[in-house]
Amino acid sequence: MQIADLLADVPTNLPEELFETLLQTDALRIERIISHAHASEPDFWYDQDEHEWVLLLAGAARLQLEGETAQVELRAGQAILIPAHQRHRVAWTTPDEPTIWLAIFYR
Amino acid sequence: MQIADLLADVPTNLPEELFETLLQTDALRIERIISHAHASEPDFWYDQDEHEWVLLLAGAARLQLEGETAQVELRAGQAILIPAHQRHRVAWTTPDEPTIWLAIFYR
Repeated sequence: MQIADLLADVPTNLPEELFETLLQTDALRIERIISHAHASEPDFWYDQDEHEWVLLLAGAARLQLEGETAQVELRAGQAILIPAHQRHRVAWTTPDEPTIWLAIFYR
Repeated sequence: MQIADLLADVPTNLPEELFETLLQTDALRIERIISHAHASEPDFWYDQDEHEWVLLLAGAARLQLEGETAQVELRAGQAILIPAHQRHRVAWTTPDEPTIWLAIFYR
């Protein structure tokens, strides 16, 4: 039985966000994403065919959702559901420590 | 956009394990489970039709898997995949603090 440690193997130097697929099946895909002071490009929006349930395991982040003026602030332990085609972008992740996301994508 | 806080609303007195469904769709079910020094009954085995990917968000636990002599020790941030019909039981959860599990069930 293989154990995955989602808080381990966090690079100290992270020029780009790191995306790792932990599990992929017909039903879903589970990813770990690590950010460290990263944000989406100002004009970039994610527009996904899949729903995304995303949970912060560490760090802090702000998401911008198209059509909403207030940004969504997330800290460790907090999760939101981003429905398919809800356009969104990462507005901010804390520079103080790595932000570790658990993202579950499904249709 | 509704935020779920998986580390909040943890009962201080927990006579039974607490199971909460956070998300249920045709594709998957996401549950938060809270244990505090709980273990499965000595002769009880979970035997599930669904696969379960389970991640410890807090605390510490040991799982017993049928057919394996060594128990699986999990601490916060660690995850394992329990295939459907892999019989298993919770051998131990720490008495020191609540153990918070994130369980993702799928077929």
